[in-house]
Amino acid sequence: MSSTDAPTTERVVIVGGGFAGVACAQGLAEHGVEVTLIDRNTYHQFQPLLYQVATAQLAPSDIMRPLRGLFRKHPSVAVKEAEVTAVDPVARTVRTAEGETFTGDVLVLATGARAAFFGVAGAEEHAFPLYTARDAERLRNRVLQLFEDADLEPARLDRGALTFVVVGGGPTGVETAGALADLVNDVMPERYHDLDVHRARIVLVDGGDTVLRPFSSKAHDYAAEVLAHKGVRLELGASVEEVTPEKVVLGDGSEIATRCVVWAGGLSVPPLDGTDDIARGRGGRIGAGQDLSVPGFPGVYAIGDVAGVEGPDGRPYPQLGSVAMQAGRAAATSILATRAGVAAPAFRYHDKGIMAMIGKGAAVAEIGAHHHELHGTIAYSAWLGVHAWLMNTTRARVDAFISWAWDSFSRSRSPAIIDAPDQPRIDWGDEDQTDDAAAADDARPEGAQP
Amino acid sequence: MSSTDAPTTERVVIVGGGFAGVACAQGLAEHGVEVTLIDRNTYHQFQPLLYQVATAQLAPSDIMRPLRGLFRKHPSVAVKEAEVTAVDPVARTVRTAEGETFTGDVLVLATGARAAFFGVAGAEEHAFPLYTARDAERLRNRVLQLFEDADLEPARLDRGALTFVVVGGGPTGVETAGALADLVNDVMPERYHDLDVHRARIVLVDGGDTVLRPFSSKAHDYAAEVLAHKGVRLELGASVEEVTPEKVVLGDGSEIATRCVVWAGGLSVPPLDGTDDIARGRGGRIGAGQDLSVPGFPGVYAIGDVAGVEGPDGRPYPQLGSVAMQAGRAAATSILATRAGVAAPAFRYHDKGIMAMIGKGAAVAEIGAHHHELHGTIAYSAWLGVHAWLMNTTRARVDAFISWAWDSFSRSRSPAIIDAPDQPRIDWGDEDQTDDAAAADDARPEGAQP
Repeated sequence: MSSTDAPTTERVVIVGGGFAGVACAQGLAEHGVEVTLIDRNTYHQFQPLLYQVATAQLAPSDIMRPLRGLFRKHPSVAVKEAEVTAVDPVARTVRTAEGETFTGDVLVLATGARAAFFGVAGAEEHAFPLYTARDAERLRNRVLQLFEDADLEPARLDRGALTFVVVGGGPTGVETAGALADLVNDVMPERYHDLDVHRARIVLVDGGDTVLRPFSSKAHDYAAEVLAHKGVRLELGASVEEVTPEKVVLGDGSEIATRCVVWAGGLSVPPLDGTDDIARGRGGRIGAGQDLSVPGFPGVYAIGDVAGVEGPDGRPYPQLGSVAMQAGRAAATSILATRAGVAAPAFRYHDKGIMAMIGKGAAVAEIGAHHHELHGTIAYSAWLGVHAWLMNTTRARVDAFISWAWDSFSRSRSPAIIDAPDQPRIDWGDEDQTDDAAAADDARPEGAQP
Repeated sequence: MSSTDAPTTERVVIVGGGFAGVACAQGLAEHGVEVTLIDRNTYHQFQPLLYQVATAQLAPSDIMRPLRGLFRKHPSVAVKEAEVTAVDPVARTVRTAEGETFTGDVLVLATGARAAFFGVAGAEEHAFPLYTARDAERLRNRVLQLFEDADLEPARLDRGALTFVVVGGGPTGVETAGALADLVNDVMPERYHDLDVHRARIVLVDGGDTVLRPFSSKAHDYAAEVLAHKGVRLELGASVEEVTPEKVVLGDGSEIATRCVVWAGGLSVPPLDGTDDIARGRGGRIGAGQDLSVPGFPGVYAIGDVAGVEGPDGRPYPQLGSVAMQAGRAAATSILATRAGVAAPAFRYHDKGIMAMIGKGAAVAEIGAHHHELHGTIAYSAWLGVHAWLMNTTRARVDAFISWAWDSFSRSRSPAIIDAPDQPRIDWGDEDQTDDAAAADDARPEGAQP
C-alpha cells in the first residue's frame, strides 16, 4: 500500500479491547491521535489467567479491568461499549447491534476469535470453552455446582458428577487440568466434609502423542510426570467423537460419563458481516501484511487473534497474547508512519519465550529467543513474575493475583470460591427420588401447639 | 419452654448463611455440635458494603465469602447449597426446591428478609432493592449501563438517563446516594471524555423530615450539609406514589424522569410454607422469645432479620447486622444451655453504636451505648476500622476493602468498574433513529479492490 492511497489520519476506530486493541490504542494515545475503541464489554480481560477464574482461584473481577479506566488520562481515546455486527472495510465504517455507526479514517480490526469445535457433534452445545471471562465464570459455576450436587446426592458420583474431561493438551488445557487437580486434591476435601472428594477424576484428552507440543521433549516428560503425580489421567492419541450432556465419546468408541467437558482445543475466527471480500487464511484468520494492514483495503488493519501475519518462516505467528500485544504496538507505529508519509516498518514478533503452569509450584518455561529451558519451582516463579508484570501493564487486579501467588506457596490457600445463582441447574433426572418426603409439610398435628 | 420439652441436641439445622446463621453455626461448631447450614447460595455476603458494590467501588466477590471456607476447620459443620421452600416447625424438618429434606433435633430459622415495597405501584417491578449481593450487582449494571447509553446518545440525558432516585433516607439510602455522588463527581468525568457528566442528578426521597432518623439532630444537619455539598437533592416529607420504567411519581403529583430508582425503604419478611401457625409481628417478623426460641415450637429458633426479639423497652430490636451477629451467638449459647439442661440466658443486644458513611471522607458515628457523637473524617476513619474488623471476622476480601479505603483518601481512586454482559438492555425506544445508516453495509463498490 503506497502512502498516496492512505487517508490522512484524523480518527482511528479500533474494534476490540483485548491485548491487541488496547496496545494499539495506547500507542496511538501517546501521540494524541483521536481513537474510538469499541468493545462489546466495558472491560478488558486478562486472558492468560482465565483458567484461574475457571478453577475458582481468582474472582472474575480480578482479571477484568475497566477499559475506560485504562484511558482515563487520555482524553483523545473514546471508549464505546457496543456489539459490532457489520463492517464496511472500504468506507471504514462499523455498525453496531443497536444501530449506531462509527467511521474512521483508519479502521483496526482486533475482534479476536472463539473456540474451534471442528464439527465435533455436541461440542458447541455441551462443552465449556475458555476464551472469555464469561466462559471462565460459566465453567467455574459448573464445577462448583457439580461438587454441590454430588454432596447432596453422592450416588451421582457413579454418573460422572466429579469427572472432569479437558479436551486439548496445549497450555490452556494443561493449566486447567492441573488447577482442577489442585482444587480436588488440596481445597475441596476440607470444604466437603461429607463427600468422598477423592473419587473425583480428571482426564486430559489430546490427539497428539504429548501435551504442550510447542515445548521441548524434556518439558513434555516433566509435564506428564507432574500431571500423573496430581492424578490427572492422560488420554493421548485420542480424538473426541461426540459430547452429550452426560458423557463424552472418544474415537475408539469408549465413553466417559461426565457433566463437565472443558474445550481447550484451538481457535477459529467467526465470520463478520461485510468482510466477505477480505481474504481469510487457516482458521478464518484475516491475512494481514507486514505492516499489519489488510491488502486491498487502504486504512484497514487487522491485529491479534483475528489476524494471521506471516513470520520470517512464511507461517503465521501463533494466536498468543504476547503476539497480540506486540502487533498492537506495531500497528500504532505503522499508522503513525503512514500518517507521516514514511514507510511503515515490517512487523517482527520478538519471541520472549513460552511458559505454562502445570499446577501449584510446577511450571515449564522456555525463556528468550533461544528457549532456555526451566522446569519446576524456578519456572513457576518465572511464570508468576511475568504474569504479575503483564497484568500490571493493564492495571488488572495485581493485588489479588499476588495474594493468590503468595498463598499458592503454602497449603493454606483459601481461594475465591463464589458462584452465581440464577444458573441453570444440572438435570440429573433423579429429583423424584425424595418426593415421598413432600407430604411432611402438612403433617403437623394440631395438638403440638401448647 | 422447660428443659423437659427440649430434645437432646444431636443435630442442628440452620437455614440461612447470613450474619445470624453463620454466627450461630460458629458458636455451635466451637463445641463440636453437628450442624447442617443451608443457604441458597454457596457464599456468605457482607451486607453493610452492598452499596459499595452497587456503586462499583468494590467487586461483588470482595464482599462474598464461601460458606464452606468459613467452616473448613470445623468438620462438624456441613454446608448445603439449597433453596428451602417449606418448613415443618413441629417435625423440625425443612424441604428444598430440589426435593431433599433435612431434619434437625434443633431447627434455627435465619432466613432473612427482603425489601418492603409497601404496595407502591410498580416499585417491585421497576425499582432496585439493595438487600443481596445479586441486588447490588443488578443495580451496578444498571448504573454503568446508563452511563454507556448516555454516552452513545446524549439526547437521553433529557430523559433522565443520568438521574438517580434513591428512596429511603436511612443509612442504606444515604450511603448509596453519597457514593453515587462521588461516582458522578470524581470518577466518571475522567472516564467519559465526550459526555457532560455534570448533568447527572441524584435525588434522595424520604417521607420524614430528616435523613438518618436514628441519629442525633447534629448528625441530621451534618448529613444534609454533606449531601447538599455533593449535589444530592433532598426531597423530604415526600412519598412515592408510583414507579414506572421511565419515571417516579411523588405524592404531590410531581414526576422525576429516571431509569434508576434505588429502593432503600425498609424490610419485610416473606411468607414461608409451613409456618402459618407461627405468630408473626410487624413486617412479618417471627416473634422469638428471650431465649430466641419460637414459642410453641420446641427446638425451633429464629434469629436475624427474620425474627423480632423484644428489647427491654418492649420493642423489637432493629434489623441490623450487629443484632443478627449477636443473636446468632446467643442462639448457640441458648441451644447449648438447653442441651445441658440449664436455663438459657435472656438475649440482650449490646448496642455498640451506629454509623453511616455519607461519602468519601464523611461519615456519622455514634459510638457505644451512650452514643458518643462523631462526624467527618474521624467518623469516617472509625467507620473504616469497624468495617475492616467486621469483614475480617468472616474473612471477606479485606485486602480489596483496605485498598478501596486507602484510595478513598486520595482523588486517584480507580474503582472496580466492571459489568456483566447478558443484561437486558434498557429500552429507549429510539433505536430507529440511525436506521438510515444500515444501508452502508452493502455500499462497497466493486472497483475499490485493487
